[in-house]
Amino acid sequence: MTVSVQAVADRAGVSISTVSRALRGVPGISQTTRKRVRDAAVELGYVASPSASRLATGRTRTVAVVVPLLTKWFFAEVIAAAGRVLSREGYDVLLTELSTVELRAGFFASPRLHGRSDGALVVAMQLGSEELASLEAQGQVLALVGSESAGASSVRVEDRIGGRAAARHLINLGHERIAFVGLRAGPGSTLGGVPPAERLLGYREALAEAGFPSDPGLEHVVENTVDAGAAAMAALLTAEEPPTALVAASDEIAFGAMATLRGAGLSVPDDFSIVGYDNHELAGVVGLTTMDHGVAEQGRLAAEALVAALAGAPAAVGRIEPRLVVRGSTAPPRRLRAGSR
Amino acid sequence: MTVSVQAVADRAGVSISTVSRALRGVPGISQTTRKRVRDAAVELGYVASPSASRLATGRTRTVAVVVPLLTKWFFAEVIAAAGRVLSREGYDVLLTELSTVELRAGFFASPRLHGRSDGALVVAMQLGSEELASLEAQGQVLALVGSESAGASSVRVEDRIGGRAAARHLINLGHERIAFVGLRAGPGSTLGGVPPAERLLGYREALAEAGFPSDPGLEHVVENTVDAGAAAMAALLTAEEPPTALVAASDEIAFGAMATLRGAGLSVPDDFSIVGYDNHELAGVVGLTTMDHGVAEQGRLAAEALVAALAGAPAAVGRIEPRLVVRGSTAPPRRLRAGSR
Repeated sequence: MTVSVQAVADRAGVSISTVSRALRGVPGISQTTRKRVRDAAVELGYVASPSASRLATGRTRTVAVVVPLLTKWFFAEVIAAAGRVLSREGYDVLLTELSTVELRAGFFASPRLHGRSDGALVVAMQLGSEELASLEAQGQVLALVGSESAGASSVRVEDRIGGRAAARHLINLGHERIAFVGLRAGPGSTLGGVPPAERLLGYREALAEAGFPSDPGLEHVVENTVDAGAAAMAALLTAEEPPTALVAASDEIAFGAMATLRGAGLSVPDDFSIVGYDNHELAGVVGLTTMDHGVAEQGRLAAEALVAALAGAPAAVGRIEPRLVVRGSTAPPRRLRAGSR
Repeated sequence: MTVSVQAVADRAGVSISTVSRALRGVPGISQTTRKRVRDAAVELGYVASPSASRLATGRTRTVAVVVPLLTKWFFAEVIAAAGRVLSREGYDVLLTELSTVELRAGFFASPRLHGRSDGALVVAMQLGSEELASLEAQGQVLALVGSESAGASSVRVEDRIGGRAAARHLINLGHERIAFVGLRAGPGSTLGGVPPAERLLGYREALAEAGFPSDPGLEHVVENTVDAGAAAMAALLTAEEPPTALVAASDEIAFGAMATLRGAGLSVPDDFSIVGYDNHELAGVVGLTTMDHGVAEQGRLAAEALVAALAGAPAAVGRIEPRLVVRGSTAPPRRLRAGSR
């Protein structure tokens, strides 16, 4: 037996339109009314047809969250923070991981989101103009984390300022040979590359300010894994004149570097200083000093901008400035500490 | 202008039904045909209406993945592994995080998934009979990770065997005072509690086999955070006769315990041995010996069982037996090493 909307409205003592709005989670209905309608619907066994409702309204109350990779702490954190905002606002989350160039090409070549989501929140992917056009043709309102596009909401992280701050901290402690290990996308990866590049530029700026010569031998660019960080640190230990400190473009790179130093019998920070980048949930465990770039905040701001844009507000650009979190993996270089005794 | 399916079929030189099947990702269409249809659709600007298509077929080609928490490594790993299977099979993922009892109650009280997904993959939540009935009433085919229900597919992790293996490893090294720090759900948490309890039972079994008396003072149950693990380890250090080794029910608990030991000037494994549980992506960084319970495998198996069940196969129960990964946080107790010199 199919229960009609009218029956639910009668039982709850409200209009059909209120039933529809209450069950779809549209704002502007009081908690008590919403509960009364829901109770009536459950008692009667009423089930709305979302597909039918969506055909009628042209709205799906769904947001697609598109990420290049799910198994990195950064993405889980961004998705969770965005998801909490979206869920609170009555949106479902359609999650899409585009972890290979093939998946990415297939996704943008077909109208996958048309009629499935009202908007798309795209994390850490530099979208090409055809990709942006594809999303627009599918009627998606956009919010971007870690990239920008005219007319789309976005969250800008001031990574150049972050990279500069990390290097300045080491310079202010007295370090003069400071290495940088940056991130590059692996083969077939769909990760955008711009934010890490900005971190490198900020590092170079700080060195130039301090009058240190640029030394390409101190700059490494690797994939964002613990193992790659460990290998990069090992390479730095073979330099003719090794650095005394490192700016790592991610905490995972820093974790790997710390493991290599421990393996070589070198102590952090007594023998070598490290600044990471992320404020990873486990940075505290290993006592890593790092740049906090508000990862959950990135997801929250993007989701809020998207929800507002879906309600008709103009696109908004959020901004996050990374800040140094001091934990104990940095100290003045040995030469200065010995001299001061 | 609306482009008709017929126009796409003509351009691609196939039937209307082939166009429909190719664009919906139904298996049994060759890669070449699928590409020809997609190219024709893109060239003509043809956009299918998924809502209409779903009303017609009654299938959504969507799976809801329901988790209690997104910001833990375990869940991101399970979701990613399940998502890759689902994506390969042409299913979209509707992601739902039920991180509070209120969200959980609201989710199961309303027909949120009806007409939105064909099946639900529920991770690490012990569903009550009303919750199971709600999902069934919404027409969802079920796959459960970390819980079981008659008629539903599930993945069973042999956590009792895992807990026993961890404790046996320490017993075989010569330890006699072995602590256990287990997991409990925090206030308002929606995490299921059964698997950690099984780990505790396995630990007790191993102690009983070895003839060691059960000592409630050596068993702590805390929330699954690094900080809680650090606090539990500190409490163990205040015991009248402290343990020489620890079985931690998660790697995060173990990370916290290691930090406390380091803070107390105690060395792992020289002064104290630890076995974790997870094989967390960062267990290698800190050299943690741990039980690998195939986290990605749990997501993969559940998704494969769900896809099969959606195609009409009977519910399947997968099984994972945890295995010890030795990394260097365990060694014979000091007393035995001294005696052997």
